[in-house]
Amino acid sequence: MADANDPGLLSAPQTSLLTDLYELAMSASYLRRGMNEPAAFELFARKLPPRRDWLLVCGLGPTLRLIASMRFGDGELESLRGLGYQGEFLDYLREFRFSGEIEAMPEGTIAFAEEPLLRVTAPRIEAQLIETLLLNQINFQTMIATKAARVVLAAGGGETGAGDRVLDFSPRRDHGIDAAMKAARAAAIAGCGGTSNVAAAMRYGLRPVGTMAHSYVLSFASERDAFQAFLEDATGNPVLLVDTYEVPEGVGRAIEASRETGVELQAIRIDSGDLDALAREARLLLDQAGMGGVRIIGSGDLEEDRIAALVEAGAPIDLWGVGTELGTSRDSPVVNGVYKLVADRSGDRWRGVAKTSQGKATAPCAKQVFRRIEDGEIRGDVIAIAEERLDGEPLLVPAMRDGELLVEESIERMRERATESLAALPPGLRRGAGGHYPLENSEALERTIAAGTWDASS
Amino acid sequence: MADANDPGLLSAPQTSLLTDLYELAMSASYLRRGMNEPAAFELFARKLPPRRDWLLVCGLGPTLRLIASMRFGDGELESLRGLGYQGEFLDYLREFRFSGEIEAMPEGTIAFAEEPLLRVTAPRIEAQLIETLLLNQINFQTMIATKAARVVLAAGGGETGAGDRVLDFSPRRDHGIDAAMKAARAAAIAGCGGTSNVAAAMRYGLRPVGTMAHSYVLSFASERDAFQAFLEDATGNPVLLVDTYEVPEGVGRAIEASRETGVELQAIRIDSGDLDALAREARLLLDQAGMGGVRIIGSGDLEEDRIAALVEAGAPIDLWGVGTELGTSRDSPVVNGVYKLVADRSGDRWRGVAKTSQGKATAPCAKQVFRRIEDGEIRGDVIAIAEERLDGEPLLVPAMRDGELLVEESIERMRERATESLAALPPGLRRGAGGHYPLENSEALERTIAAGTWDASS
Repeated sequence: MADANDPGLLSAPQTSLLTDLYELAMSASYLRRGMNEPAAFELFARKLPPRRDWLLVCGLGPTLRLIASMRFGDGELESLRGLGYQGEFLDYLREFRFSGEIEAMPEGTIAFAEEPLLRVTAPRIEAQLIETLLLNQINFQTMIATKAARVVLAAGGGETGAGDRVLDFSPRRDHGIDAAMKAARAAAIAGCGGTSNVAAAMRYGLRPVGTMAHSYVLSFASERDAFQAFLEDATGNPVLLVDTYEVPEGVGRAIEASRETGVELQAIRIDSGDLDALAREARLLLDQAGMGGVRIIGSGDLEEDRIAALVEAGAPIDLWGVGTELGTSRDSPVVNGVYKLVADRSGDRWRGVAKTSQGKATAPCAKQVFRRIEDGEIRGDVIAIAEERLDGEPLLVPAMRDGELLVEESIERMRERATESLAALPPGLRRGAGGHYPLENSEALERTIAAGTWDASS
Repeated sequence: MADANDPGLLSAPQTSLLTDLYELAMSASYLRRGMNEPAAFELFARKLPPRRDWLLVCGLGPTLRLIASMRFGDGELESLRGLGYQGEFLDYLREFRFSGEIEAMPEGTIAFAEEPLLRVTAPRIEAQLIETLLLNQINFQTMIATKAARVVLAAGGGETGAGDRVLDFSPRRDHGIDAAMKAARAAAIAGCGGTSNVAAAMRYGLRPVGTMAHSYVLSFASERDAFQAFLEDATGNPVLLVDTYEVPEGVGRAIEASRETGVELQAIRIDSGDLDALAREARLLLDQAGMGGVRIIGSGDLEEDRIAALVEAGAPIDLWGVGTELGTSRDSPVVNGVYKLVADRSGDRWRGVAKTSQGKATAPCAKQVFRRIEDGEIRGDVIAIAEERLDGEPLLVPAMRDGELLVEESIERMRERATESLAALPPGLRRGAGGHYPLENSEALERTIAAGTWDASS
């Protein structure tokens, strides 16, 4: 029953209806016509988003789990009956299980425009019915991982390895609950060292991190009382927020409170004002007090450019709490991934398929991407026909066979791949400075595009 | 157990852990100190987002339901024990139910910077533990409703009433599953006429809308075969997508297919190219074929400026399918709502609370907003102390008492309010042209801010 104020949460099987209506309309027609032989669809971005020179692929693991669990239960079927669907099609949906194959770039891989991030080969209806969910999940998570990786690189002065210094503080600005859960995961894969999001930390095994809010300080008669109380009550190593009033005084009170309570401070946080100047002042005060080990967390509308400038200036900030910008990819909040039919099978012949709309043409046939890496640096990619065997590493690898997940990686493994991929980026591309990236189609693919058709035995 | 590839979906009670870790750290400290007397927090945006002159408030209904259902079950408590929480605090959480009061602007209200969108008055710990979820939900949904309202105004040439002509096509670009569900709802409240998102349409009682994809056309030997098949198999009035190859030829084939099958076309859709020129050409062909009733849907990276230009130019487009831009608020993807302690009670005295950080100062005490409307137009708002009684309509109304929801509105009611609110906007503000809006603090509030303190009996 429709309910205007429903919390709007779906269980995993219910994501079957997280679909554009046209997927159902087309599927019903395919079923009626017996057009359910295998088809191949590829997910790719025609262009990189503004201000991005590469994408850090993310989201595959949770998405494959969702696809494997999509079901049309009685409630869903009843809803579809109300839309005019009936008979054979509803019977088909009742038995629906994704049974196809997926080849995909593993999470943490760097991808460029036009490169397929994944390819689905499945009975046409199955491939069609997972489209919306796939795009909804992969586009968004890839966007966040890409943004987070940019922040990680900025924190490291353009080098990898500083990820542990970046913390996800984004849940309050993320676009809803799923966004908050997946943003924390994507940030971790991109290299970030922790998240303030407790649910995501628990679900994904990430490091939960927390400081204190201004409201805590304001709840006491004085900043000093607040600090003392927080240190006395702390679970774990506490962080004091020193900018509710004036930062230097706040730092002084933090030092006093730590001395009086005998509780060691882990860090202080500065959330407003001139972070460079305030952090220097705070560092001096802490060092003079013999608290050289107390770290400084900077936060407050931080993004990669501001962090890069602060790092460049030598601001003594040890940890970066990044919320809004990381969780929404504010300067570039869309990865325009599309999901296009590239081939289908009739009998034992595969046929390459392409559309020719102005500005939205696609390249026919199942593809693979070969990446050449020399001396630890990416030299260039070639997009080829899937059956070709070219030099370099093939980026799309088997992820699902017969509807079963083949590999599930740990966050650590994905993060390791992301770090390696970022380290292998040509330096000019690491900070999204509009650098050129060598990407070309194989000769065979070019011939196929020129011919406008492609034909191969299965 | 942590699982790197978990689908990441939460049930309603589990949203208790969708919280920043510091909320728990502060709450544990408050409990230990017996600091759990009522406190008042307000949710507001210090500044309007870039390119926005107002906000259309949205998200209250589903958020209150989530708050009412937040629980800490065994799994959640076990997780928290792993973080070092124990004893009395876990016992408190086990019994946690939100028992407080919420006053809020109803969904569909127009709000400006500094105006509280809602106020929570509850035992301090309860008020603190709902912060992250409240911000996560209200910020995002308000952002989408605001964007959708701008698109609706653009479709109407700056006037309300054209909402039925705007369709939400966003699920594939929304930031995850919750975003897709709530974007469809927010768009409907802002006035939009339908959504492609089947799950959201079913859950919220919205009009599901669908066309066809290029992949359908490409699945047949010819565009004509595809159109004919789609019309024969259609449930409801079908829409044909005419730009897989060339639009004029596509329109011709749509006309033929409709004649041959005897199935009436509802609309055609153009998704690429020069929409103005192509729509004029299509209109002419349809009219010449005696199909004046067939409507034209425009889609493809549309946003309010492009729609306004097309409307201004007189492009014969009847319906606007808006995806990416609507579902991500791409040009301004953040509403920077914050949640600030404004007062707390000790014994029978309420104390006003404010922070004074540079650039982030807050105004103390519980507030109300009074809006003066004359001749159907908003003349200005006054932010006052909650107990004041000024001219105009008080915008914050009771939404929850003792943890119980007081009112639940229908989508129609909220949409009606949104339409009235938008119609009452000074014309200069309707299209976000940087117009001035008269907003002031009451004299009593100004005195309170100047005094830096506020004190009142409960």
